[in-house]
Amino acid sequence: MYFKKIKSEGLAHLSYFIGSENEAIVIDPRRDCRIYTEIAFEQNMNIRYIFETHRNEDYVIGSVELANLTGAEIYHGKYLDFKYGNSVEDGSEFYFGSLKITAIHTPGHTDESVSYLLSDTDTGKEKIMVFTGDTLFVGDTGRTDLYGPDDAPRLADNMYESIFEKIVPLGDHVILCPAHGSGSVCGGFISEREESTVGVERLQNPSLQVKNRDEFVKLKTSEKHFIPPYFKKMEEYNLKGAPLLNSKYPPSLPPHEFRKQIHNGALILDTREPVSFAGCHIKDSYNIWLDGVPSYAGWILSYKKPVLLVMEEKKHLDTVLRYLLRLGFDNIAGYLRGGIESWYNESFEIEKSGLMDVHKLREEIKNNNLNVLDVRRNDEWNSGHIKSAVHIYVGELENRIDEVPDSKPIAVVCNVGKRASLATSILKKNGFDDVYNVMGSMTAWNNAGYETEK
Amino acid sequence: MYFKKIKSEGLAHLSYFIGSENEAIVIDPRRDCRIYTEIAFEQNMNIRYIFETHRNEDYVIGSVELANLTGAEIYHGKYLDFKYGNSVEDGSEFYFGSLKITAIHTPGHTDESVSYLLSDTDTGKEKIMVFTGDTLFVGDTGRTDLYGPDDAPRLADNMYESIFEKIVPLGDHVILCPAHGSGSVCGGFISEREESTVGVERLQNPSLQVKNRDEFVKLKTSEKHFIPPYFKKMEEYNLKGAPLLNSKYPPSLPPHEFRKQIHNGALILDTREPVSFAGCHIKDSYNIWLDGVPSYAGWILSYKKPVLLVMEEKKHLDTVLRYLLRLGFDNIAGYLRGGIESWYNESFEIEKSGLMDVHKLREEIKNNNLNVLDVRRNDEWNSGHIKSAVHIYVGELENRIDEVPDSKPIAVVCNVGKRASLATSILKKNGFDDVYNVMGSMTAWNNAGYETEK
Amino acid sequence: MYFKKIKSEGLAHLSYFIGSENEAIVIDPRRDCRIYTEIAFEQNMNIRYIFETHRNEDYVIGSVELANLTGAEIYHGKYLDFKYGNSVEDGSEFYFGSLKITAIHTPGHTDESVSYLLSDTDTGKEKIMVFTGDTLFVGDTGRTDLYGPDDAPRLADNMYESIFEKIVPLGDHVILCPAHGSGSVCGGFISEREESTVGVERLQNPSLQVKNRDEFVKLKTSEKHFIPPYFKKMEEYNLKGAPLLNSKYPPSLPPHEFRKQIHNGALILDTREPVSFAGCHIKDSYNIWLDGVPSYAGWILSYKKPVLLVMEEKKHLDTVLRYLLRLGFDNIAGYLRGGIESWYNESFEIEKSGLMDVHKLREEIKNNNLNVLDVRRNDEWNSGHIKSAVHIYVGELENRIDEVPDSKPIAVVCNVGKRASLATSILKKNGFDDVYNVMGSMTAWNNAGYETEK
Amino acid sequence: MYFKKIKSEGLAHLSYFIGSENEAIVIDPRRDCRIYTEIAFEQNMNIRYIFETHRNEDYVIGSVELANLTGAEIYHGKYLDFKYGNSVEDGSEFYFGSLKITAIHTPGHTDESVSYLLSDTDTGKEKIMVFTGDTLFVGDTGRTDLYGPDDAPRLADNMYESIFEKIVPLGDHVILCPAHGSGSVCGGFISEREESTVGVERLQNPSLQVKNRDEFVKLKTSEKHFIPPYFKKMEEYNLKGAPLLNSKYPPSLPPHEFRKQIHNGALILDTREPVSFAGCHIKDSYNIWLDGVPSYAGWILSYKKPVLLVMEEKKHLDTVLRYLLRLGFDNIAGYLRGGIESWYNESFEIEKSGLMDVHKLREEIKNNNLNVLDVRRNDEWNSGHIKSAVHIYVGELENRIDEVPDSKPIAVVCNVGKRASLATSILKKNGFDDVYNVMGSMTAWNNAGYETEK
Repeated sequence: MYFKKIKSEGLAHLSYFIGSENEAIVIDPRRDCRIYTEIAFEQNMNIRYIFETHRNEDYVIGSVELANLTGAEIYHGKYLDFKYGNSVEDGSEFYFGSLKITAIHTPGHTDESVSYLLSDTDTGKEKIMVFTGDTLFVGDTGRTDLYGPDDAPRLADNMYESIFEKIVPLGDHVILCPAHGSGSVCGGFISEREESTVGVERLQNPSLQVKNRDEFVKLKTSEKHFIPPYFKKMEEYNLKGAPLLNSKYPPSLPPHEFRKQIHNGALILDTREPVSFAGCHIKDSYNIWLDGVPSYAGWILSYKKPVLLVMEEKKHLDTVLRYLLRLGFDNIAGYLRGGIESWYNESFEIEKSGLMDVHKLREEIKNNNLNVLDVRRNDEWNSGHIKSAVHIYVGELENRIDEVPDSKPIAVVCNVGKRASLATSILKKNGFDDVYNVMGSMTAWNNAGYETEK
Repeated sequence: MYFKKIKSEGLAHLSYFIGSENEAIVIDPRRDCRIYTEIAFEQNMNIRYIFETHRNEDYVIGSVELANLTGAEIYHGKYLDFKYGNSVEDGSEFYFGSLKITAIHTPGHTDESVSYLLSDTDTGKEKIMVFTGDTLFVGDTGRTDLYGPDDAPRLADNMYESIFEKIVPLGDHVILCPAHGSGSVCGGFISEREESTVGVERLQNPSLQVKNRDEFVKLKTSEKHFIPPYFKKMEEYNLKGAPLLNSKYPPSLPPHEFRKQIHNGALILDTREPVSFAGCHIKDSYNIWLDGVPSYAGWILSYKKPVLLVMEEKKHLDTVLRYLLRLGFDNIAGYLRGGIESWYNESFEIEKSGLMDVHKLREEIKNNNLNVLDVRRNDEWNSGHIKSAVHIYVGELENRIDEVPDSKPIAVVCNVGKRASLATSILKKNGFDDVYNVMGSMTAWNNAGYETEK
Repeated sequence: MYFKKIKSEGLAHLSYFIGSENEAIVIDPRRDCRIYTEIAFEQNMNIRYIFETHRNEDYVIGSVELANLTGAEIYHGKYLDFKYGNSVEDGSEFYFGSLKITAIHTPGHTDESVSYLLSDTDTGKEKIMVFTGDTLFVGDTGRTDLYGPDDAPRLADNMYESIFEKIVPLGDHVILCPAHGSGSVCGGFISEREESTVGVERLQNPSLQVKNRDEFVKLKTSEKHFIPPYFKKMEEYNLKGAPLLNSKYPPSLPPHEFRKQIHNGALILDTREPVSFAGCHIKDSYNIWLDGVPSYAGWILSYKKPVLLVMEEKKHLDTVLRYLLRLGFDNIAGYLRGGIESWYNESFEIEKSGLMDVHKLREEIKNNNLNVLDVRRNDEWNSGHIKSAVHIYVGELENRIDEVPDSKPIAVVCNVGKRASLATSILKKNGFDDVYNVMGSMTAWNNAGYETEK
Repeated sequence: MYFKKIKSEGLAHLSYFIGSENEAIVIDPRRDCRIYTEIAFEQNMNIRYIFETHRNEDYVIGSVELANLTGAEIYHGKYLDFKYGNSVEDGSEFYFGSLKITAIHTPGHTDESVSYLLSDTDTGKEKIMVFTGDTLFVGDTGRTDLYGPDDAPRLADNMYESIFEKIVPLGDHVILCPAHGSGSVCGGFISEREESTVGVERLQNPSLQVKNRDEFVKLKTSEKHFIPPYFKKMEEYNLKGAPLLNSKYPPSLPPHEFRKQIHNGALILDTREPVSFAGCHIKDSYNIWLDGVPSYAGWILSYKKPVLLVMEEKKHLDTVLRYLLRLGFDNIAGYLRGGIESWYNESFEIEKSGLMDVHKLREEIKNNNLNVLDVRRNDEWNSGHIKSAVHIYVGELENRIDEVPDSKPIAVVCNVGKRASLATSILKKNGFDDVYNVMGSMTAWNNAGYETEK
């Protein structure tokens, strides 16, 4: 048996390639799926089946793309009317090499969610692994809020059954293979550690330490998750099948042409580090640091407007494009050739924003010289924040821009200053001129020993 | 937690890199250990500890090499007088990042064998993983014969306790991380699948299905394993610490210089495929196909004679050198520049050996025209062989050369014809002229539906 | 100025990427043309122009492919009715960055042939480089026989003028950049050295040492070149524009499926080394060693039949595919998964052919036991051959199969035994059973000091 | 013949690998010389000779390092008492494969300077290439000022003879291969184009357009070049032979350990882009953007103090280390793990410097609010500068710090703002607090159409 977990950073999405003899399957492939065909080539395997655990909402699944390259058959749950692929029944079995996959219906995260059990016919009948999709994670369970608050209790109830009556009974010995690791928007408390078993989760997963079904439902329905606007597009793509990728690279644009594209309505995504962005950027750019693109681009970009890129180095292009295509942003108008330097060398107009360290921040707060905006998630905010700070999550900032106090300069904090930089870019784009990104933000604030309140 | 299993092909040796925050450990590193420092660099980690599960006998452990590059501390069991590193007590604990390692003494394979337990202080006290070295494998248990037949029962008894009283009680949920996968000389029935847990082994591992201690001891002491001659050198190196590697490449030698080295007493290792070797090779070469080098070079090469290489392609050099240095063969005199072609282009003398397909073999057997030599392992031989065949394991062939019948031409079989090619090269080197390698060997024989007996 | 020569091995085809500031041109791109877009990306350049020196007959030019990826404009000579791109006039000028290209009409190899002159406006008006296509090579001049013997004198006359009245007058100092290096079918005596200038050629090129126009024409019309059958397809493709490439890999076929494709009429191309091929191959395979594919596949493959591949290593696939697509062979039915070993492991029928060393060959000739077939080019044959040998060039062998003597076993020689192996495969496919490839062939024969005659 | 030019960016140093059959030579190897052994391996060649054109002063030559790896013999001019290698006579000949090297004594840049002529015995006696070291460049001639002003006229006179009586007479057709391309400190006007011949230089090289010897001497002795302080060390190393490299990587240091090293006296080299540096840096850092390290590190670092690195990305480490070791800076104390972000996340003290665009600069100049410091070379300054600017070359700034006006804030300009950033870092380290780097500097100023004077 050949087993390989493929992690897509940022999304913290986990897909799996499993092969035996010359046959292989892929579970929940990502859209830039050459990685699977390369493994298959290296391992002398043909990919026969592609299994989806559920209709994903946080990224474009690569099933259609991969099937197009390989001829593999796609399978998913029967309780949703997918426009591509085939449905599995509860208990459907699939053989490849000496391995067997059994599908079991495990609703809760979505109605059609399926888990896949792996057993090894060479060694015994017991299940060896379970691929739980977004039902059971290491240290957490999947969201049950995606159909809205009315359906959440029903879904939580379903999930209870899926976990306690279907997955836990498989036995402590079964290796757990979920669809996400730490950092995903699909679960707030997923562990940093990705290695686990059903038994480890039974013993350590906080969500599984409930007394009964009611406590579980209560727990799940009390959770608060964000629903970024791009989820709608993902749901559409993953129901109908996303368009196939083409392999052309976007053009490198000299400053004059780049400016032309701005005038034509393209959005600017600047993936440089916060300090660089603060020093100099093109008016109306959004700043998302490189590895933040998978998590934050879906909050601010639009499927209706082309995207222009400003990058620290040209070598980042491949990474940025992968991050964007996983979210379905395929309309890239080009990137600024020579980077921001080529822009200011032309003497084109540039913008700055402020940078502030925590020592200066503390002083200014004392002197009542500015307002503090904290753009972290609720759980981060609740774990301790600066007294007097206003709290708006970065993803919601542009929609709640009216709530931002405009009486004084604004200092923005997050945990280290990266999301704060996105927030400053949003504020500037929306007319706030005197904004500061606090370098090191709450991490530095805490390391400096400054006071917080909960 | 960052977790990475590193597999050294051929030896089927598994080492592990585990990190948390900026600290990492390596368990049982191999000698070509840049792979660990590269991961450490990539993950922003410093390697603090190197843990050895036991004094290995089948490869040169890389602890000293890796410690030299990183400054990490080496730890191993206390019941052997290692000339380097530090000893662990039963129950010793080590912390790195949020992880904890606990050493437990698990004798049986060797007296000083240690298993290492991993727990994650972020999520709970229960053990998550166990690194069992050569004590417990997926589908098998470690050898207990290395101290000789007198000690075997005692070691088997110790192993029973280590497994049933120390490892199994950890719980079904604990992920199993052994030191070898399928194909290792350290266990005959290790599973093709490397993913397992203590629970899966409890349920499926044939060695663990015994009724009691006595049955286990009986089972283990009845096993037959080979002890290749190079084990002695490995034991010496792994007790005292192997010499550090240098980074120079061996020279490419034109035919005239290559021939000079032969005359000076160097051994020739020809790593081409059997069919190429049969068609044309240099007199007195040993033929081990490329990926057979880790398993068979230790049977035939000598630590006292330099090694000369003949390869299919120059690009194989790096692989061959890695394979050899893992076995401690550091004295490489050079490789034949331009390959075998350059040799015969010089009109230098070449040798051939015979190739035969299974259909021809069957005909010749019927006509009583040749003797058949089967060079597979005992278990393969016992699973079915050609009637009238003589059985000598390939590793022992050179020492048992007198037992080879010389009345007629000899056709050699193994499972697919690769070890058979090594055997024909040994036969030729020892004066047998009329020898045939049977292409496809018993695999083709069986696929052709020809009769075998057990 | 950025200057890069890109060599396509086997074809010995030279293309050129030249850039200045952010603009670049490519001269005579090959069909697998990602290499040009990668350089352009790396150098921050856009490819503006693609220049063709002439309608090539020995490979598929990549202009259409590259223009599709980049939007560059294609230019070529006006005296041929190309179905794509634009025509240049004699004297047309093109500027990019600080560089200037001037086209000059230099017929001779073909009527529409154009040379391109490069000058550097930053440093002066003099020409720095000349891109001569197939007009003037290092050490040779282009063929003038492609329109047939009737046109050859006229073309030779044109070439005389192109070289002596247009290129030589540019001055000794001009760097020469031809379209082919040593090994090309487009010139028999191209130098091993690729670096040259107009002056070096004036002084050293044998073709340029003629006394006058008549001597030149006589020299050129007396040359003998082969016209491989695939030239027709190349001419068609390079007139009309070749189909765009797709990026799918051909499937790996297990032996049963591979056999099915054979039965459906696919041709088998076995790219293993001669010694491997002799030991064991599939019936009716053609054997062309890997790096011989660009030169010999065009003699034996057909555009009407799919191609099946047998390779030494799977890693060769990318190379073989590139070699084939450069010749327009895009219909690849698949490759044998697991190589020839998987075939004989199935106990499927295999074929062998003979191998013989030169010492044995000499003995057999003395005893009058076999016929010798020499398959080298005329010039090689004329430089010395074995007495009594029959001479048929390998490329023509299949068409002249009736001329091969069939009274005795046949030993085939070339220079080192590679083309001889292709010849043995052709002989076997055509019913000759007792054939031997002579390892080392004439090289070994000569190294052994054996007699030849001229 | 195999020919490969290897360019070391930043130094604009050109070395050459030339091979024929299985033998090769390297001319003026760089110190990180694995690139030559890799080519040799790839090409099946042994490096027999290493030729030095002269004792270099701008980088550590890799002859000793390469000879240590390969056993090649080192040759250089006889008129300097080198402590390693062998001397060549004027006219010494060396053969490798079918090629021939002839050494000719061409003093002028240094007394022992040698040029090497290449001819191809396969094609004729005429010289094909000349390797001129620092004697003749494309578009320029070598410096004659290195022995001081007293010797300059003599050296210039020698160079005239070397060029006009030895190199030019070789003929227009000879390809020119100098030791430096554009950007080197060894010649101010070397062309952007690296391809040339003796004839092209005769026609276009400005230095060669002189009427006579006197005019040439006058021209050369009127040139002004900088002599960076590290030249002394290079001269010492290249006379005696530099120490061999070791292959260990410097450690990654968390902020606390990094700070400890600062306190121990290490210098900080920050290789981030100017905008990042301005936003936030560690006190007393020098800022040299990544690709400026080869040209500027030698002005500011010390061979007596260890170096600490702050980088934009960890992936730059290999590049920075190469750049430094080429200048002999082998004592690297470590790099800041996690980059500058890890520093401010610790709430450690940071420094800022100012950024200004050219529009703002113009306004401030008008209002007489600041002093302008121009740190470009003389020739750049002379080509047009801002009225009222003070001119001190960046390399000399630290030594001439007393000349910097301190009455008002200082805005620093260079051509694009990179050297200006180094200058601001020097100013800050020397107590100037209110300093601004002008983004885009004179390039942007000119693009904006603002006035300059000459």
